[in-house]
Amino acid sequence: MAKNEGSDEARSGKLLDELRVPPGPVDLSKWDSRATTGFSGSKDEGKVALDELGPKISDYQERLYAEGRTDGQRSILLVLQGMDTSGKGGVIRHGAGLMDPQGLRITSFKAPTPAEKRRGFLWRIKQALPEAGYIGIFDRSHYEDVLIARVRNLVAPPVWNRRYGQINEFEAELGESGITVVKCFLHISADEQRARLDARLDDPTKHWKYNPSDVDERELWPAYSEAYQGALENCNTPEAPWYVIPSDRKWYRNWAVTSLLLETLQNLDPQWPKADFDVDGEKARLAAT
Amino acid sequence: MAKNEGSDEARSGKLLDELRVPPGPVDLSKWDSRATTGFSGSKDEGKVALDELGPKISDYQERLYAEGRTDGQRSILLVLQGMDTSGKGGVIRHGAGLMDPQGLRITSFKAPTPAEKRRGFLWRIKQALPEAGYIGIFDRSHYEDVLIARVRNLVAPPVWNRRYGQINEFEAELGESGITVVKCFLHISADEQRARLDARLDDPTKHWKYNPSDVDERELWPAYSEAYQGALENCNTPEAPWYVIPSDRKWYRNWAVTSLLLETLQNLDPQWPKADFDVDGEKARLAAT
Repeated sequence: MAKNEGSDEARSGKLLDELRVPPGPVDLSKWDSRATTGFSGSKDEGKVALDELGPKISDYQERLYAEGRTDGQRSILLVLQGMDTSGKGGVIRHGAGLMDPQGLRITSFKAPTPAEKRRGFLWRIKQALPEAGYIGIFDRSHYEDVLIARVRNLVAPPVWNRRYGQINEFEAELGESGITVVKCFLHISADEQRARLDARLDDPTKHWKYNPSDVDERELWPAYSEAYQGALENCNTPEAPWYVIPSDRKWYRNWAVTSLLLETLQNLDPQWPKADFDVDGEKARLAAT
Repeated sequence: MAKNEGSDEARSGKLLDELRVPPGPVDLSKWDSRATTGFSGSKDEGKVALDELGPKISDYQERLYAEGRTDGQRSILLVLQGMDTSGKGGVIRHGAGLMDPQGLRITSFKAPTPAEKRRGFLWRIKQALPEAGYIGIFDRSHYEDVLIARVRNLVAPPVWNRRYGQINEFEAELGESGITVVKCFLHISADEQRARLDARLDDPTKHWKYNPSDVDERELWPAYSEAYQGALENCNTPEAPWYVIPSDRKWYRNWAVTSLLLETLQNLDPQWPKADFDVDGEKARLAAT
């Protein structure tokens, strides 16, 4: 689809460039989880900035949706990964919540069932891919199959090792079929996680979000960090790059992921479909009713 | 689940009472499509009132969701029906859009495929029912099988006539399985529809929403009105009542449907689940990490 040369939107993709993981080895300890990359204001200003993205991103979303209702084949897939309490749900609530829910396809992946496992780890992922015009959001994803599967020894090392290549092939196919993949690792510090779990325990309205296994998983923090680094190193392709989102500040995390989505939409630059009928003729037919 | 006696919310279900279709014959010409039943303010005040429902309905939605993540079995199904341009999509965008998209299950029903038809008209509907804790929203529904199917003679009269009873049985089962059904007919006048279709033709960013068949359907307005009256008369049970939403004013329609949803949530009165673990013990375990 041709670029809209008259558009008044900047399409520099600035934050996409700044948060993108460069090719090569990844050392998460070198990424500051409290950073506010690309945003110079305060927390309150960050919340206002997020709200201000609402009308803009809704407009682009509707254009993508409209394109998909006619002859367009494009869609977006936002993959959210991160340690417990990193805010995958919060991003969906506060960021995706700015958009029209009709154009979203949100899937939350839990432990696979036996029936799902038998079909290979990518099968259930493919079932949940967004159709043309939709923005798909994965709360966890096929990356769990090289994260918890690795840390918890759910499969042997040769199996999870082979999956990196399988994931890269799969994500390249997505790109070819018109799905733009945006993968965000919500990066929090171990101290921040302790504070958030503690806050859940202090608040009876948040007890349902807490599970004693959260502490078991937390005790494996170094192993999970290593597994994340493996995924970010081995599955960081030009077609499906990784972004590290500093997530110790919730307001920044929400603003940053939403901004990445907006920039992705701006790069796609979907246009309102042209009428495939005679507008004046239809006006006359309508007037006669 | 016990009622929360300390709640400061009124649970009179006032609008649910006012907009509910009384049992017996239905004559849509007696329902004013420009009414603003239950709301005395202006258009601008109506928009503010809608926004103000946001935090309240989000809170109830999260409680229902939390209940569903533990041992709760309850959910809500909002069925939206109405003539073309009556605003089914607008209600979802502006009303449901106030809620967390993670807790919504939105399904838009188009003409059934041959494979769907072979399984009976309720099969695809059952596939899309909301799981425990979710709010399901149907943009069109099984009612199309007694509306367009009747008007367009897609099936013989004995077939669509039999479907009223099948629908009533199905909806009674939904109630028994914990799904509260709220069925809204978005009521617009024929003049209002002409104005809305005309506005779509005048706006190139809305051409994708227009289809010449919209005028063909419009020419069958009286037959559709009769079919709607049949559905509202024959499928108006205490378990799954119909509400007529005056919808010539978009702002009122959005406020009214969202208010019905809020009142339904208030009647369900979901409570935050209690911890099934030792909170102090977990705080100690966490502190040790």
